[in-house]
Amino acid sequence: MLKRNQIRNPENFILDLDGVLTDGKFYYSQDGKFLKAFGADDHDCLNFLKQYLHIEVVTADTRGFEISKKRVADDMGLEINLVSAFHRPEWIINKFDPGKTIYMGDGVLDHLVFKRVLYSIAPANAMNFTKKQADYVTEKVGGDRAVAEACLHILKNFFVDIKHEFSI
Amino acid sequence: MLKRNQIRNPENFILDLDGVLTDGKFYYSQDGKFLKAFGADDHDCLNFLKQYLHIEVVTADTRGFEISKKRVADDMGLEINLVSAFHRPEWIINKFDPGKTIYMGDGVLDHLVFKRVLYSIAPANAMNFTKKQADYVTEKVGGDRAVAEACLHILKNFFVDIKHEFSI
Amino acid sequence: MLKRNQIRNPENFILDLDGVLTDGKFYYSQDGKFLKAFGADDHDCLNFLKQYLHIEVVTADTRGFEISKKRVADDMGLEINLVSAFHRPEWIINKFDPGKTIYMGDGVLDHLVFKRVLYSIAPANAMNFTKKQADYVTEKVGGDRAVAEACLHILKNFFVDIKHEFSI
Amino acid sequence: MLKRNQIRNPENFILDLDGVLTDGKFYYSQDGKFLKAFGADDHDCLNFLKQYLHIEVVTADTRGFEISKKRVADDMGLEINLVSAFHRPEWIINKFDPGKTIYMGDGVLDHLVFKRVLYSIAPANAMNFTKKQADYVTEKVGGDRAVAEACLHILKNFFVDIKHEFSI
Repeated sequence: MLKRNQIRNPENFILDLDGVLTDGKFYYSQDGKFLKAFGADDHDCLNFLKQYLHIEVVTADTRGFEISKKRVADDMGLEINLVSAFHRPEWIINKFDPGKTIYMGDGVLDHLVFKRVLYSIAPANAMNFTKKQADYVTEKVGGDRAVAEACLHILKNFFVDIKHEFSI
Repeated sequence: MLKRNQIRNPENFILDLDGVLTDGKFYYSQDGKFLKAFGADDHDCLNFLKQYLHIEVVTADTRGFEISKKRVADDMGLEINLVSAFHRPEWIINKFDPGKTIYMGDGVLDHLVFKRVLYSIAPANAMNFTKKQADYVTEKVGGDRAVAEACLHILKNFFVDIKHEFSI
Repeated sequence: MLKRNQIRNPENFILDLDGVLTDGKFYYSQDGKFLKAFGADDHDCLNFLKQYLHIEVVTADTRGFEISKKRVADDMGLEINLVSAFHRPEWIINKFDPGKTIYMGDGVLDHLVFKRVLYSIAPANAMNFTKKQADYVTEKVGGDRAVAEACLHILKNFFVDIKHEFSI
Repeated sequence: MLKRNQIRNPENFILDLDGVLTDGKFYYSQDGKFLKAFGADDHDCLNFLKQYLHIEVVTADTRGFEISKKRVADDMGLEINLVSAFHRPEWIINKFDPGKTIYMGDGVLDHLVFKRVLYSIAPANAMNFTKKQADYVTEKVGGDRAVAEACLHILKNFFVDIKHEFSI
């Protein structure tokens, strides 16, 4: 493990939503997008990480935005941004200091964001070529603790001795 | 296999809910938490285990409590307790004799409970560091027979010759 | 492969429902069981197998019976029976000639049925001790082509040269 | 990798729906088919591939057609056709030039289509005998980027240097 924390000080953690905080599936009824499936532990771990980093969520899904907002903004208390995959590299550079930003994404264009930020994380369910571009790939998939694992990795890599913090 | 039954006599089996009795997912509609997915065989095996142990369920999920209650209390006939992950170690010690209690959990803080009880079980879907702290890790994941497998393990390990009991 | 078709002539194929025709999950809303997830190809393959065998479905799930009936009886056109896991061995012997019956099940008590019938099949998602008792274990899991695979296995094993039948 | 692009010029990409664009599951309530689960990245990748190929979707699912139509026609803007698995080989030959058509399917009869077209793709969740008949098998399963992976494979195999196109 590199001692990254000695030389780099991240300030932001920006997460893609579908496939990262969810299993990536859009559950459709005949009336359209009806459900998204969010996972266990992600909320708890993000709450813990908030002590160290500013956290925001970004999604390109316009039609499912009300579902995403309900979970992320109302129930998790995080800011959620609607930004297309194509505009994401530009958006992240303009809104945040990319040299102090950690980004987690699973999308087919997310490697373009990976290149612009301090540190990039992909969940196990991303495409192989996306995972190859990421600084860290979680063992867990989106909607099944990928974000929780990423949070613990960030804590360990940049901030604290995780063994001590979690009383293991 | 240790002959644990000769030296220890568990009286309680306390189970976490999300990720243990479910697949850990919160299925959200735009109105909030809408579905949880419970698995096969868990109910039957817990019913069988009731002959040997007092069984209760614990959950930290306030917003999904009505869904959880419907399954666990109404349909499975088990007591369900709403206790945050942070208060769980204290809660389990105060309510039960920890030296006679088996606990099954998958959460990022459940290792703190594992340390206080007689015997701890984690499902395959828990984080690696959680699984390392558990006395037993099921092969099955939550919502897909992890609890059924845990029940058979408890029977075999503490109470009966499972081969005989299940007429195998 | 044994040339079973030369010495045995099955007449019935009886299938358990939850975990065999579904992924084994009960999707609960706060009003109770709301969804079950059935898989692709199972219906088509059972339709094909109907030329060779009498097919019925059996379930122990009382509360989810309306959901099961909708899929199995209304949409697949198969008879569905409500029989508890404990009464199943007796039920199958009384209703069918067990020596001419193939049974597919994934439940913790289904090995008791396996022992009474001509031929038994378990899906990959069954417990290990259940799978050890089965004559055949599918590679696929329930709700993801386990039944389709079982149908093709039955055709190949008891009736036809599957390569020819499916024009492969 | 064969240099197929030098000798073959595909014009159409025809995709099966259930198990290819979805996870293959039919989520039933007591009123019948209620949900289907579509995956991430598939829509984005098909949009990109539209520059090179005419794309249509085919499904045999009559009862779930309104759900399928909502996703595929209304939200993805693709033509969707209702054609039974048995009539599919004939349909594809009559509607398209089979020598210029790529077909992706996971069904138990889809190998019959595979034989008639220029190039065939099966997702990882198809049956083994279906996958053996396909020219290409994705690592990803339906509803979890199988189509996205297929699109990138088609681009790479028939049209462009994917490394350059995706700025990797």
